[in-house]
Amino acid sequence: MMSGFQDLGFGKIDIDREQRTGHPEIIFGAGKTPEQIAAIFRTLTEAHGCAMVTRASDEAAVEVAKLYPDAKLDETSRLLTYGRRNRQLPGKVLVLSAGTSDIAVAGEAAGTAEWLGCQVERVFDVGVAGIDRLLAYRSQIREASVLIVVAGMEGALASVVGGMVRRPVIAVPTSVGYGAHFQGLTPLLAMLTSCAAGVSVVNIDNGFGAGYQAANILQLVEESGGER
Amino acid sequence: MMSGFQDLGFGKIDIDREQRTGHPEIIFGAGKTPEQIAAIFRTLTEAHGCAMVTRASDEAAVEVAKLYPDAKLDETSRLLTYGRRNRQLPGKVLVLSAGTSDIAVAGEAAGTAEWLGCQVERVFDVGVAGIDRLLAYRSQIREASVLIVVAGMEGALASVVGGMVRRPVIAVPTSVGYGAHFQGLTPLLAMLTSCAAGVSVVNIDNGFGAGYQAANILQLVEESGGER
Amino acid sequence: MMSGFQDLGFGKIDIDREQRTGHPEIIFGAGKTPEQIAAIFRTLTEAHGCAMVTRASDEAAVEVAKLYPDAKLDETSRLLTYGRRNRQLPGKVLVLSAGTSDIAVAGEAAGTAEWLGCQVERVFDVGVAGIDRLLAYRSQIREASVLIVVAGMEGALASVVGGMVRRPVIAVPTSVGYGAHFQGLTPLLAMLTSCAAGVSVVNIDNGFGAGYQAANILQLVEESGGER
Amino acid sequence: MMSGFQDLGFGKIDIDREQRTGHPEIIFGAGKTPEQIAAIFRTLTEAHGCAMVTRASDEAAVEVAKLYPDAKLDETSRLLTYGRRNRQLPGKVLVLSAGTSDIAVAGEAAGTAEWLGCQVERVFDVGVAGIDRLLAYRSQIREASVLIVVAGMEGALASVVGGMVRRPVIAVPTSVGYGAHFQGLTPLLAMLTSCAAGVSVVNIDNGFGAGYQAANILQLVEESGGER
Amino acid sequence: MMSGFQDLGFGKIDIDREQRTGHPEIIFGAGKTPEQIAAIFRTLTEAHGCAMVTRASDEAAVEVAKLYPDAKLDETSRLLTYGRRNRQLPGKVLVLSAGTSDIAVAGEAAGTAEWLGCQVERVFDVGVAGIDRLLAYRSQIREASVLIVVAGMEGALASVVGGMVRRPVIAVPTSVGYGAHFQGLTPLLAMLTSCAAGVSVVNIDNGFGAGYQAANILQLVEESGGER
Amino acid sequence: MMSGFQDLGFGKIDIDREQRTGHPEIIFGAGKTPEQIAAIFRTLTEAHGCAMVTRASDEAAVEVAKLYPDAKLDETSRLLTYGRRNRQLPGKVLVLSAGTSDIAVAGEAAGTAEWLGCQVERVFDVGVAGIDRLLAYRSQIREASVLIVVAGMEGALASVVGGMVRRPVIAVPTSVGYGAHFQGLTPLLAMLTSCAAGVSVVNIDNGFGAGYQAANILQLVEESGGER
Amino acid sequence: MMSGFQDLGFGKIDIDREQRTGHPEIIFGAGKTPEQIAAIFRTLTEAHGCAMVTRASDEAAVEVAKLYPDAKLDETSRLLTYGRRNRQLPGKVLVLSAGTSDIAVAGEAAGTAEWLGCQVERVFDVGVAGIDRLLAYRSQIREASVLIVVAGMEGALASVVGGMVRRPVIAVPTSVGYGAHFQGLTPLLAMLTSCAAGVSVVNIDNGFGAGYQAANILQLVEESGGER
Amino acid sequence: MMSGFQDLGFGKIDIDREQRTGHPEIIFGAGKTPEQIAAIFRTLTEAHGCAMVTRASDEAAVEVAKLYPDAKLDETSRLLTYGRRNRQLPGKVLVLSAGTSDIAVAGEAAGTAEWLGCQVERVFDVGVAGIDRLLAYRSQIREASVLIVVAGMEGALASVVGGMVRRPVIAVPTSVGYGAHFQGLTPLLAMLTSCAAGVSVVNIDNGFGAGYQAANILQLVEESGGER
Repeated sequence: MMSGFQDLGFGKIDIDREQRTGHPEIIFGAGKTPEQIAAIFRTLTEAHGCAMVTRASDEAAVEVAKLYPDAKLDETSRLLTYGRRNRQLPGKVLVLSAGTSDIAVAGEAAGTAEWLGCQVERVFDVGVAGIDRLLAYRSQIREASVLIVVAGMEGALASVVGGMVRRPVIAVPTSVGYGAHFQGLTPLLAMLTSCAAGVSVVNIDNGFGAGYQAANILQLVEESGGER
Repeated sequence: MMSGFQDLGFGKIDIDREQRTGHPEIIFGAGKTPEQIAAIFRTLTEAHGCAMVTRASDEAAVEVAKLYPDAKLDETSRLLTYGRRNRQLPGKVLVLSAGTSDIAVAGEAAGTAEWLGCQVERVFDVGVAGIDRLLAYRSQIREASVLIVVAGMEGALASVVGGMVRRPVIAVPTSVGYGAHFQGLTPLLAMLTSCAAGVSVVNIDNGFGAGYQAANILQLVEESGGER
Repeated sequence: MMSGFQDLGFGKIDIDREQRTGHPEIIFGAGKTPEQIAAIFRTLTEAHGCAMVTRASDEAAVEVAKLYPDAKLDETSRLLTYGRRNRQLPGKVLVLSAGTSDIAVAGEAAGTAEWLGCQVERVFDVGVAGIDRLLAYRSQIREASVLIVVAGMEGALASVVGGMVRRPVIAVPTSVGYGAHFQGLTPLLAMLTSCAAGVSVVNIDNGFGAGYQAANILQLVEESGGER
Repeated sequence: MMSGFQDLGFGKIDIDREQRTGHPEIIFGAGKTPEQIAAIFRTLTEAHGCAMVTRASDEAAVEVAKLYPDAKLDETSRLLTYGRRNRQLPGKVLVLSAGTSDIAVAGEAAGTAEWLGCQVERVFDVGVAGIDRLLAYRSQIREASVLIVVAGMEGALASVVGGMVRRPVIAVPTSVGYGAHFQGLTPLLAMLTSCAAGVSVVNIDNGFGAGYQAANILQLVEESGGER
Repeated sequence: MMSGFQDLGFGKIDIDREQRTGHPEIIFGAGKTPEQIAAIFRTLTEAHGCAMVTRASDEAAVEVAKLYPDAKLDETSRLLTYGRRNRQLPGKVLVLSAGTSDIAVAGEAAGTAEWLGCQVERVFDVGVAGIDRLLAYRSQIREASVLIVVAGMEGALASVVGGMVRRPVIAVPTSVGYGAHFQGLTPLLAMLTSCAAGVSVVNIDNGFGAGYQAANILQLVEESGGER
Repeated sequence: MMSGFQDLGFGKIDIDREQRTGHPEIIFGAGKTPEQIAAIFRTLTEAHGCAMVTRASDEAAVEVAKLYPDAKLDETSRLLTYGRRNRQLPGKVLVLSAGTSDIAVAGEAAGTAEWLGCQVERVFDVGVAGIDRLLAYRSQIREASVLIVVAGMEGALASVVGGMVRRPVIAVPTSVGYGAHFQGLTPLLAMLTSCAAGVSVVNIDNGFGAGYQAANILQLVEESGGER
Repeated sequence: MMSGFQDLGFGKIDIDREQRTGHPEIIFGAGKTPEQIAAIFRTLTEAHGCAMVTRASDEAAVEVAKLYPDAKLDETSRLLTYGRRNRQLPGKVLVLSAGTSDIAVAGEAAGTAEWLGCQVERVFDVGVAGIDRLLAYRSQIREASVLIVVAGMEGALASVVGGMVRRPVIAVPTSVGYGAHFQGLTPLLAMLTSCAAGVSVVNIDNGFGAGYQAANILQLVEESGGER
Repeated sequence: MMSGFQDLGFGKIDIDREQRTGHPEIIFGAGKTPEQIAAIFRTLTEAHGCAMVTRASDEAAVEVAKLYPDAKLDETSRLLTYGRRNRQLPGKVLVLSAGTSDIAVAGEAAGTAEWLGCQVERVFDVGVAGIDRLLAYRSQIREASVLIVVAGMEGALASVVGGMVRRPVIAVPTSVGYGAHFQGLTPLLAMLTSCAAGVSVVNIDNGFGAGYQAANILQLVEESGGER
């Protein structure tokens, strides 16, 4: 093992990451074999006392369970976790989703932020075609510290929410849609060209990235006593 | 001249169109020389007593004015007209636009519908980043017979309006934007994948097409006494 | 339940929609589990006395049938319905399709319009490669109140029909084709750039949206007694 | 000079081409300096007794005129020619165009075919939005040996013509249009996915290529006495 | 049955097509059920004495065989035929393919042309990476009446062949490739922008269209006695 | 004037925005006439005591200077400002840019954040092709509260920086590049698919949006005393 | 058999290739039947004493093993080989990969170069999000003769490595990623627009091409005694 | 000045680059002001005794000439140079271009390689439409150490050359073309999917990158005495 990372042959685990970034490395489960996932999982757990896999398959969950029977797979978000970060970040993350079919991605965002120490609230299925559904949550929206907006179709929810708040909005386009939706390209472009300022965007279906960015922001709040 | 159209060599003017469609042919000004435009303009005026050019250049307006000094060019919408259809269609067309920069296209939509005999109302700069601006017009929106929603950027206005009404919404994406907006491709795709039903879409910057479709719908209302 | 919608946890059913738009919410079946569909179906039926699912899988149909044994699944259009709107809108909707393979989408358009209260006629397989097949229906085409043109391949049918009528044409590109067709992108773009005015467009394979827009137009005719 | 071509330093003129292909090399004028064009023009004229430049600028025409005062520039098609092929191919090429703005490309197609020895007829502005304009030319269309269909917008003309004839149709998409037309991409894709068989396609605005292909086909007719 | 076509409900068979185009309608097998294919097959066979299906599935072949046990399915080209056109067109069609994996499409082109009455020669796997393989066939290439060039990857074969001959070249891009090949988009674009004149292009994998166009050209040769 | 916004005819100024979002409306200068900009500028200055225009032309600056001679135009960033927000947000924003040509966008990001009350540091021309240039700033990078990474070409800087810090990174792709860069599409996509977590992205060349998001984050820090 | 190649009917094996290029033909396994692969394999083995198949399926391996029981399939890289080139090229090829999921492509690159006679070193999972992992290998990187950089996601590794060395870098984008990654298009474009000079690029997932190019470069070193 | 680079405020000049890479930094002239270019030029000349700018404007040349009157601008390639590298690398670089219009890019490639110490030969206008022009240079092609193939249109030249040699081929697509050429996207994709192995690709119009890569390869030959 060289300083800062551990070499498993097929992968070099970035043990040093927690010190640099505040968060341990999290395993992106797609494209890895169950055996690779389990090996990385063990390395991370031994270093940090907890581990998380995103986009975990049932096979990966079975393989990890051989090592850590208490590891849990969330069926909706496909997050596979053992333990969680032992910290409580300040503020609240609000995860809004536009439609029922966006819940998997919204769950990944919410679950990631929680695992990293955030307090999270969820408001699902408030797409703009029924604007009064959304407006019914106006005060909750305004009180959040960070907002994650998850939407497929045309992704308009991000713009409407972006115009309502004084807090950072992280938009997550989803691949939910068909035809001219192009597997999420359309809401991705729409969110990037939002008429509302204060909206930044992550990759299609990247609930993980949004939850992580929210945690980074709240980590800043937590640690910025000295900076103020 | 063959039955139904008149051959000018460079073009065959579809004199028969008014009988088929209820509206005379309208000249698409882009890509034609001022001389071609003036010649077609004369043919149409002689057949119908009025004529209209979209996307008219100043040069085209000068050339037409030699023949019809009373022809008028609207600087914002670039509509060049002589007279107008002598009819008053029932109902009201409401043209909504999201931003100040969308006014040219919104003006083309409104001007086209008016020239074809519609009563038109305009509400401009009600983009969704300030949702209360839009909601302030809710009753006017609900009372319109046909709605034309003109928006650049991410085009979210069409979805919000589409969810508020019981009337057909015609969405017009505009080329106003930059970067990931791709000259209007993004709001075009967004409007096509709108989460609101009852929204149909025309080409980027095609205010003319939206105004024309609105007139077709109100022409149906006008003429559907016998169909009801 | 908050005013106007009912919260099922995974979704907020927009009970208020019928009052706003004249039509109850319709369930988009793709991307929802059979259990979610059945739960929403029940909520809508209890509120409106009828319900419809588009793109319904066999599994969803089975699940709904446990609650509503009389619900019917149309094999071609994949519409799953229980009852229908109790109204008869004026005029006629004509659904034209270009090829045999476009029938599923054409059926979704026709079935949606019928369920919403429209009288619908169907003329299928009249693509422009045999222009005389289309011209044989010229009088029926001219007598329709609203026309829905469903076409894959290059989508030329919309332009030819658009030039023949005084009524709104709603064009539906389909994903039927291969190679440079790009799953419907080509007819979508072609319909948007149609040389015929009076054609507006909905998303690829969105027969539902076209049928709904047709119903909106005829609802306007129905209700515009006072507006004329 | 090596056998078969002549080296001008910036270019190697393919003198041998006439023997291989039946036609001399033709100069593509875009992207070459007037001096380069004039030098190649001279080389070709000396070899073949005639020469042609496509997309010729006024500056190129001036430069060539210093050498060949009788060279002629056609303002519409931008073809610059000196003399022409001394042959008369059998049959007739019919060039159809959809709109007034497509005439430049149609002219390039017609002029190229004529220069190469074809008899050419022109029918312009017969787009499908007024299908009766097109049908008025049905017998002329059926009597042509080769048809070149030039269309911008959605390019539907190629499909309608393709379904009417027993002869090869060469479709030329043009860059005339806006928005979702994408500088000719839309009619290009539409023509490639035409529902009519017997339609092959050349590049956007490539009137030259269509005229050349027509000449190749009629050259086959001319020379196929022995093959029959 | 209306004049010129026969209505099967799901489709209107264009019986009149043979008289207009010289060839009977051919069934595009993809996207139709075996039952639909069999019904159309019967209608065409009764009208013309022969029939052909492209992209035929095994299921379709079985269904057709119930009606016409002598119908044959070619495993490589997926052409399902019963009988063939009873004519012998003049000249020779040469089908060239670049790679082993392009043979299915090349076979569709060759089989279509043969079924329509052409004499066809095949030279496969002569891609330009081994230019001497291609040059070994130079005289055969120069003697063909019409050339069909089938290539995936970058499609360069069409340009090289196009520069060698005095005859029309029809290029067929195939979906054989990966990565930046984009399922055939790359050779499609490459063939459209070929530096060789005299190359026209059909859709990706559209061997049928190329074979049909070749037959149209040779039909012109056959019938142009009077035109010369 | 209706509650919350002021109607100038061509635009509805969102006076209420400062209360909702913490920042006054900022004028997007592109696509507006100098007169429109000056009128909005005046309205905003009267409401808030300061105003800012992005992408200001020289003409707009002249027009605004008639009203506010002290307004200043920054030549590099094209920001036109009068006064600035009277507040000092905690922490530090670090703006990093990859190349000399990215400075205009980087300047817009830095200038926006400063105008909104942030303390800003700039480190320009530290692209990854000379990784030691970047590493020389490692401690400054780690001490920033929020990082804005501005890069054209392939945009790799965002990923490298993203992996070095525990703070939110906002990536801004620029249109600086050529060929396969597609006016910024390539770094946009690259930043969205970054292998580093904690990177969110704004539109191409949208320095304003990044500066605004940074201010939103630091506003959260400022106001989150009660939330901690 | 004609001079230089051997005709198997479905393919013409380029026996002459070794003499022209220094390397025997290698079989691209995708899109060929096991029987075709085995027949080509035998022809090549008989000519050269060894053979290699890329992207070999298990079925192909079984078929080849009937002829050559000693042929070996590498499970990760999908290379199927019998023997190898009997030569040792000078220098070292270093294959770097960014992530665990890129190992298949990296393995194809490394295996190809080795089979062609190169000495190869492998350093995997050194993506730029943990830049210190990469820098730990700086001296090994600087000592390589040719570098192959394999990366999915945003492909930033190529730029960082490109800036560190005085040797040619061959970049291989992989299809590992999701959403805005577009099956490898994003790293492909990013690598093409790299801010580092000395980086050339091969097709997505084309590990074979990179290994082959590395061998070509080292073959030049080997054979350039006389050229220096 | 920090170790390894010199900070000019708007840019950090990578003085260390020559030691790392063997070549001094070269200035990319597009997107920089003449003053910026001159300042960087001076810094590089003082460090290395020579400097080069690519894509230099006339204005930049004038500004540089104030400092270095002997600096030379090549009109075709737009290379602005003062002195050159004082070294002679072994072997020969052969630059081939397909058409007259590709000469500017070919000249940039050739000039860059020469400035970096390579011996360069040029063969221009040998596009594949006249394959015998290319074959006339077969022995010169086979004797080159590195080949740079510059082509617009469909870029087929790279594949043909790639199949003829045992040396690395670097392909440069150019933006010369129109329509479906998409400013060079088509030859870029075609070169990436070449059926010939041993071809790697640089960005559209990136003659500089190709010349630089060639120099890197020959630098390896020069320095690999010890590695062999």
